[in-house]
Amino acid sequence: MKVFEEKLAELRGKHEALLTRPNRPIEGNGIYERYENPILTAAHAPLEWRYDLDPESNPFLVERFGINATLNSGAIKWNGRYVLVVRVEAADRKSFFAVAESPNGVDNFRFWPRPVTMPEWGEPATNVYDMRLTRHEDGWIYGLFCVERKDPAAPAGDLSSAVAACGIARTRDLVEWERLPDLKSASQQRNVVLHPEFVDGKYALYTRPQDGFIDAGGGGGIGWALVDDITRAEVKEERIISARHYHTVMECKNGEGPHPIKTPQGWLHLAHGVRGCASGLRYVLYLYMTALDDPARVIAEPAGYFMAPQGEEYVGDVMNVLFSNGWIADPDGKVFIYYASSDTRMHVAVSSVERLVDYCLHTEADGYRTGETVRRLNRLIDKNLNRKNK
Amino acid sequence: MKVFEEKLAELRGKHEALLTRPNRPIEGNGIYERYENPILTAAHAPLEWRYDLDPESNPFLVERFGINATLNSGAIKWNGRYVLVVRVEAADRKSFFAVAESPNGVDNFRFWPRPVTMPEWGEPATNVYDMRLTRHEDGWIYGLFCVERKDPAAPAGDLSSAVAACGIARTRDLVEWERLPDLKSASQQRNVVLHPEFVDGKYALYTRPQDGFIDAGGGGGIGWALVDDITRAEVKEERIISARHYHTVMECKNGEGPHPIKTPQGWLHLAHGVRGCASGLRYVLYLYMTALDDPARVIAEPAGYFMAPQGEEYVGDVMNVLFSNGWIADPDGKVFIYYASSDTRMHVAVSSVERLVDYCLHTEADGYRTGETVRRLNRLIDKNLNRKNK
Repeated sequence: MKVFEEKLAELRGKHEALLTRPNRPIEGNGIYERYENPILTAAHAPLEWRYDLDPESNPFLVERFGINATLNSGAIKWNGRYVLVVRVEAADRKSFFAVAESPNGVDNFRFWPRPVTMPEWGEPATNVYDMRLTRHEDGWIYGLFCVERKDPAAPAGDLSSAVAACGIARTRDLVEWERLPDLKSASQQRNVVLHPEFVDGKYALYTRPQDGFIDAGGGGGIGWALVDDITRAEVKEERIISARHYHTVMECKNGEGPHPIKTPQGWLHLAHGVRGCASGLRYVLYLYMTALDDPARVIAEPAGYFMAPQGEEYVGDVMNVLFSNGWIADPDGKVFIYYASSDTRMHVAVSSVERLVDYCLHTEADGYRTGETVRRLNRLIDKNLNRKNK
Repeated sequence: MKVFEEKLAELRGKHEALLTRPNRPIEGNGIYERYENPILTAAHAPLEWRYDLDPESNPFLVERFGINATLNSGAIKWNGRYVLVVRVEAADRKSFFAVAESPNGVDNFRFWPRPVTMPEWGEPATNVYDMRLTRHEDGWIYGLFCVERKDPAAPAGDLSSAVAACGIARTRDLVEWERLPDLKSASQQRNVVLHPEFVDGKYALYTRPQDGFIDAGGGGGIGWALVDDITRAEVKEERIISARHYHTVMECKNGEGPHPIKTPQGWLHLAHGVRGCASGLRYVLYLYMTALDDPARVIAEPAGYFMAPQGEEYVGDVMNVLFSNGWIADPDGKVFIYYASSDTRMHVAVSSVERLVDYCLHTEADGYRTGETVRRLNRLIDKNLNRKNK
């Protein structure tokens, strides 16, 4: 038994060192600072989740429950702590939600002792993932997430076709969740996000209608829908507010990230855009803004991406992916952007409302053609050269 | 001439340093230990294979024969040595077999002077790869491998469609090979493996029937077939023993790795599972066990993967791939798992029969739904928390 206890002490020491490792900002483009280390990885999962710690039943002290990845996390400030509802993926590929918190938002993230037991609604889900958290003005904290079930219409032998719907749950403590009926919608839905305020007295959703499970199909784009009753939510009318365009970073798909941040200049949105390439899909993050008096009216659409994979972020279970469904704006204007790289681990980048709004309002929009891009570049060069010549 | 000889001496020095580099185990999940360095890379190929060493005809001492990769290798203990029959891929994309051996199984692997000249059978093969070695109780060493030929039914302009069949050869010395007729089968076949013992007096094959060249099609799964005469092998009846399932690590495809290891608790199997994702297919390794008295009856199916790509393994000619068709169990129970990463280079991980069987018998099976995964996790947490409270 000595060997077991020694091994366990070593495991605990290494785990604690990983969890308490300090994080440092990396200088970047001035708009935000990435932090050096991932904030959550599979190795951050508690040892009690992965090992049977009984020397009788696990004499070799080997893993009994493999954690594969910690990714797309919703985020919320909660009792003064930076809290993520993490998508945790097990070795069996199924993902579930688990809460992790940090005192400062950039390191020392630690999982709560147990994963979330999400009540089922309807046909039990094969998979749940990518929760968007919204502290709504109705007093509840809502979690909207993707619920995946096997496509009942799939031909025999097709073991991949699935149907994606939006699951809705609410909580007051992030532990006990009340599951509401899934969103009713004419199309499949992913990336549905609840706006934090009532609009015309109704709940407001950012949606992402799609024809099939993977393809955004003929429609796509980030949609907007008002819902009378969140306990029986249904998309009746839906219109696209951030459309896809040929030869942009969102040519194939796009989707809302976390709910937008309210700023004096408008609602500040974080979204993802997807294009195809020879090695598959490439996911990047972009920003846009909508009007304070109408969260569905776009007022700024800076060209191109805001963040794209770099360095080790490129590599993981699904390559070439940045994805964010969580950010936290502090009262002092500091913004913590929580993003996952390549469906494998969580990172943080820090900015401020002021800098992000400045980026949105002072980055020119996409001209959709190389000639326009060159003209846009020359306007900037002209400005700089004129200044130098003065 | 001086310069040539100096360059050559430098090449030889570097090559020898690479071949004799010691390898070290890396701490992992307790079930196995990966080793730090790949055990075989393209750079391990003998200089005599790659360079014309005549200063007259190769004054610049440049490579004349490009080796691209060393991958999916069969394995066998042979005269006290750890021997691999390596899939070596040339710069022209064609692969062939070559034998490499090591005194200790983890480093100092060295190719034999010549590649295997595999006799042809029928229409000469465009490509051969992924040999499974079996020392059969009939006294022969068999190599079963995939033989690929252009699909004669492919429409004009389609230069990719191929037909995959199982090639069969046998040897007594790993140098001279007797080629037997390819396996007759109603469907295309890859990943066919010969069981080391007779079953009901017949040769027994693990198969992987597939409809098309890449897709596992409507069928798929690891099959089982008995063959009367290995010199005229034909799959007459075939049944699936390890099936694919929706939303598992083997959703798209799976296939037997090397032949199973006989243990007191049953036959221990290593296989690969494939799922699709936004960046293509993802290949991981999994384990299962079958009954000693019936190698086709599954008795343990631990959930999820046993090994998945990590770190540098993710990246290579075909990203996100671990593949194994060779392992060696020593008489003392030590098990050397030889696996390739991303179709590029060979690695080793070391475990023991005891630990691998323990993993199989004490890791719960897949519940096929996220709710079941959370329950499984909570059972483990309960066990650990109850223990702590005692």
